[in-house]
Amino acid sequence: MTPDFLNPDELEVALRQIGAERYHILHPFHRLLHDGKLNRGQVQAWALNRYYYQAAIPAKDSWLMARLVSSELRREWRRRIEDHDGNIGPDGKFQGSGIERWLKLAEGVGLEREAVIRADQILPETRFAVDAYVHFVRDRSVLEAVASSLTELFSPKIISERVSGMLAHYDWISPETLAYFTPRLTQAPQDSDFALAYVKQHADTVEKQQAVLGALRFKCDVLWSQLDGLYFAYVAPGMIPPGCFVPAPERTPEATSA
Amino acid sequence: MTPDFLNPDELEVALRQIGAERYHILHPFHRLLHDGKLNRGQVQAWALNRYYYQAAIPAKDSWLMARLVSSELRREWRRRIEDHDGNIGPDGKFQGSGIERWLKLAEGVGLEREAVIRADQILPETRFAVDAYVHFVRDRSVLEAVASSLTELFSPKIISERVSGMLAHYDWISPETLAYFTPRLTQAPQDSDFALAYVKQHADTVEKQQAVLGALRFKCDVLWSQLDGLYFAYVAPGMIPPGCFVPAPERTPEATSA
Repeated sequence: MTPDFLNPDELEVALRQIGAERYHILHPFHRLLHDGKLNRGQVQAWALNRYYYQAAIPAKDSWLMARLVSSELRREWRRRIEDHDGNIGPDGKFQGSGIERWLKLAEGVGLEREAVIRADQILPETRFAVDAYVHFVRDRSVLEAVASSLTELFSPKIISERVSGMLAHYDWISPETLAYFTPRLTQAPQDSDFALAYVKQHADTVEKQQAVLGALRFKCDVLWSQLDGLYFAYVAPGMIPPGCFVPAPERTPEATSA
Repeated sequence: MTPDFLNPDELEVALRQIGAERYHILHPFHRLLHDGKLNRGQVQAWALNRYYYQAAIPAKDSWLMARLVSSELRREWRRRIEDHDGNIGPDGKFQGSGIERWLKLAEGVGLEREAVIRADQILPETRFAVDAYVHFVRDRSVLEAVASSLTELFSPKIISERVSGMLAHYDWISPETLAYFTPRLTQAPQDSDFALAYVKQHADTVEKQQAVLGALRFKCDVLWSQLDGLYFAYVAPGMIPPGCFVPAPERTPEATSA
């Protein structure tokens, strides 16, 4: 059966439906995280692996920018890279960045900064999923690449769940440690408003609409697969692949709070 | 014979020697341009074709940025894209850009803005050379990609020759029309200082040094070939390829100044 042609608002409904069914807010690892059911080592594994994703985003966005054909579009897309890589102010000082704030998060949960940057102990699932995302953006149409960013439509909800849940349940995590997420609450909607409008305007055939929906499904899989890997290695059955991060033995609450 | 290993300063000398021998400041088309020997249609052909090169630079730089592995390096390289694509100020207004200034130049010499942007009447030589540059940066090592930017070491001289020559010889070209070149006189040295230091630091084997020298030769060829195409089509023998820009018949001086 050939899919129907959708008007732009129907396309948006279909995109949001994919999020409702496939976004990683539904993944059990996320629920364990925000319910405070993960121990420190499991949270460390999450922070360590997720860094590889964070660090790849500006590369992904640069691949996309390389194929945009106007200054206007590139300027819009460049803002994402600025959010992640940061800027040097007029005083010559680094003004902070998303990647830097994620490193602070990783340090805040007890990881060593250089080990996080090296990323030599992340899970193969993380590496394969993140690399697949970068390659998707590099190799598919610009329209599909833009559409693959649309998981940001759903991120404010997962971020607020994550932050409130983690602060409520982990007394060893401070608001400063989670500072990464605060600007994301305004950056993500700004980004996704643009991307959604772009997709609604340019997906003007049945074929393009199906490609756009497929791109968002693909991206949901990228996020989902990362949590699958974490769950499998660090929750159940807890089989850590060779060479990957092994958390230190859990200390007693007394020792932990010391 | 195996080439000698060069210390960093010897490598710089070898790079500058390539410029002295192969930079397009030596091309007869450049000399005709700055000596005021080209008519309006020939200058238009130059502005039209060169726009395709200008417009490709931020794509080239995005490809490179996509493969840089630190925020610091990407921020440094991002400045080049900002110079070409411009920024929106805090007041929401576009603050100008290199590409926009080149369009003003093209309009100033009598071309229609939209026709320049469409780039559907440029020479095949222009398209092949510029695309080869973009692909070189995309496909070669980061070191070679950085080295290919080093023609900027030589650009302040060609720019000042071009501007003074054009203003002296063409009464239909105003300083405003040539505003593109003014910021380039400070941007290019800032860019090439960084790129030269990078290359001198990272080309630490004979093989890498040869690759770096080859990259700069390649880039000189890219610039040279564009002027070859213009000379061949619009100077001598003046054979314009099918479908390419055909200048309007030269008007009399009286009509021109009307």
